[in-house]
Amino acid sequence: MYLERLKNLKAYKTETTPCKVKLSSNESPFDLSEKLKERIKEEIVKINFQRYPDPHAKELKEALAKFVSEEENLEVSPENLVLGNGSDEIIHLLITVIGDLKNPVMYPVPSFPMYQVSSDVVGRPKAEFLLDDNFQLTEEGIQEALKQNPDIAFFASPNNPTGNSFDSKLIMKVIEKGIFTVIDEAYIHFSDKENFLKVALEYDNVVVLRTMSKVGLASIRLGYMIAKKDIAREIDKGRLPFNITYPTQVIGKIVLTEGKEELKSQIKAVKEERKRVMEEISKIPSVTVYPSDANFFLMKTPDGNKTHQELIKRGVLTRNMSHLPKMENCIRVSIGRKEENDEFIKAMREIFT
Amino acid sequence: MYLERLKNLKAYKTETTPCKVKLSSNESPFDLSEKLKERIKEEIVKINFQRYPDPHAKELKEALAKFVSEEENLEVSPENLVLGNGSDEIIHLLITVIGDLKNPVMYPVPSFPMYQVSSDVVGRPKAEFLLDDNFQLTEEGIQEALKQNPDIAFFASPNNPTGNSFDSKLIMKVIEKGIFTVIDEAYIHFSDKENFLKVALEYDNVVVLRTMSKVGLASIRLGYMIAKKDIAREIDKGRLPFNITYPTQVIGKIVLTEGKEELKSQIKAVKEERKRVMEEISKIPSVTVYPSDANFFLMKTPDGNKTHQELIKRGVLTRNMSHLPKMENCIRVSIGRKEENDEFIKAMREIFT
Repeated sequence: MYLERLKNLKAYKTETTPCKVKLSSNESPFDLSEKLKERIKEEIVKINFQRYPDPHAKELKEALAKFVSEEENLEVSPENLVLGNGSDEIIHLLITVIGDLKNPVMYPVPSFPMYQVSSDVVGRPKAEFLLDDNFQLTEEGIQEALKQNPDIAFFASPNNPTGNSFDSKLIMKVIEKGIFTVIDEAYIHFSDKENFLKVALEYDNVVVLRTMSKVGLASIRLGYMIAKKDIAREIDKGRLPFNITYPTQVIGKIVLTEGKEELKSQIKAVKEERKRVMEEISKIPSVTVYPSDANFFLMKTPDGNKTHQELIKRGVLTRNMSHLPKMENCIRVSIGRKEENDEFIKAMREIFT
Repeated sequence: MYLERLKNLKAYKTETTPCKVKLSSNESPFDLSEKLKERIKEEIVKINFQRYPDPHAKELKEALAKFVSEEENLEVSPENLVLGNGSDEIIHLLITVIGDLKNPVMYPVPSFPMYQVSSDVVGRPKAEFLLDDNFQLTEEGIQEALKQNPDIAFFASPNNPTGNSFDSKLIMKVIEKGIFTVIDEAYIHFSDKENFLKVALEYDNVVVLRTMSKVGLASIRLGYMIAKKDIAREIDKGRLPFNITYPTQVIGKIVLTEGKEELKSQIKAVKEERKRVMEEISKIPSVTVYPSDANFFLMKTPDGNKTHQELIKRGVLTRNMSHLPKMENCIRVSIGRKEENDEFIKAMREIFT
């Protein structure tokens, strides 16, 4: 009786087959430098392990605000930020607290699965609409979803698992309707397109989500929301008070201050490798490669399930997306280190000759 | 409009006045030993910081299952456990997923504030009922709450902020009604009374919550739920997939295996100090000391607000509970290290002579 809603939920599944080359989770392929690890070693033992972490993560937020401000060349202060144990937690929070739970959550499909998962966990209806064959938003899809009277909309741009950015004019139309709009910019560091940060700092109904998970720190679970100060303050009230662990606060601060240049050069390396890998795979006649602004790309092969398995046989783990709408035979491939990408390219050539 | 529910929420507040002696958050007063910190130093740098943590926290759950099994002399396996980023997260999850959100969450007051906070964040009604003047459950209170048709009940036993354990017979009455019942045993390590672990492993509608936060690891946020395997499996489906950070998995495992004896002797020391401090404070004629099975105790003074401030002036931070129902002039005092407790006792004697 009391477990009824849970029984209808599917457990979250991720690719777990152990492989030499892991290109399945859109992580950064680079571990932190020895220098940063030495600093973590020094600082981690200064933690009072018996104490609760700072519920406001003051020092970490200051470091993060400075990092974003420099990156974007505009002023973001700690009061503009809400921190999450991964952006997953912020997505869940927004789906829980924004508007009326009777009104749906609007998002395109295919997109990041947590919008659907959190809506289902909270028991909130979903106004899903399909992307077109180029994985773009359509005016018609948006209009259909709006008819269902959503209180909140999610747009992951660049989108996961498709890799492309959405047309910002279409997103602006949703924003101008007054819908609370979340732009999930988890992959923005790998994109040269415009982002929504300025819009978020200007509009009451727009927030931007970002994360450290794609730029080298998936381990510590640090997602963040950027919004106008009064909006951030209200949303922060719904956050669990001690959601950012003490080690995450310490490690995050070190990397966001002393590790800035390291992160930047790793992002640059991923973008260069993305260009190379996509060019090489595009040369295989039976494989379609889709454009990407992210640290992964999507490819379509004649038999996606088979390609996925053949890659595993050759020690390369990718993410099979064939089960998703519009994604038949599609596989998502994260960009790895040069030698990892070489193994992937080699495996693909073997499979398709 | 979309922020309406948030605007009615109060932000979580905690005591933050910096004081030399901090007896305000029911933390363990003992930091980890140098030996364990050395081990943490060694293991922390082995983390692949760029990778997501194990979504199932396999090794940590194995260590925890073994720890609980030995502690309780019964068999608890990893499949009986659900891990949370603090028990806060599990409380929030249960309030979100158990039963119908239209049906209330039942709990006594005063008790741990997160039952109320999470109910409000989720927008779920509350069936609150008052404890009696000895902070005990009453048959009448329970009957009143049951009339409101709750789907889930929380009993913190030992209770925070009162320190006493509840009558298990009255809790069993709620369980036998078929209500999904959560026994929050955050403070059980400091109690010699019976616990509900065996009941949880037997009943479909009973789960036990525990945490590492009171026994020396508040920093890493590690709460856990213990239940029958099929119940744990269903509830785990509602958990955010990567909620336990990689550093928490590493540090938790070290402490739960290599640090077992250390934790035990610290718990013993806290219980001995509790006896001493409570005896000393009981000797002050105008102060009432309430019985405690926890790592803190409650005291009532002629003017609680004033006593709280006078203690701060003397460098001792406690938690003022005067604003809560049934708690006029009451102050909650965590047990510290011997020298900290001496400062607290000295300050109290000064204030009351």
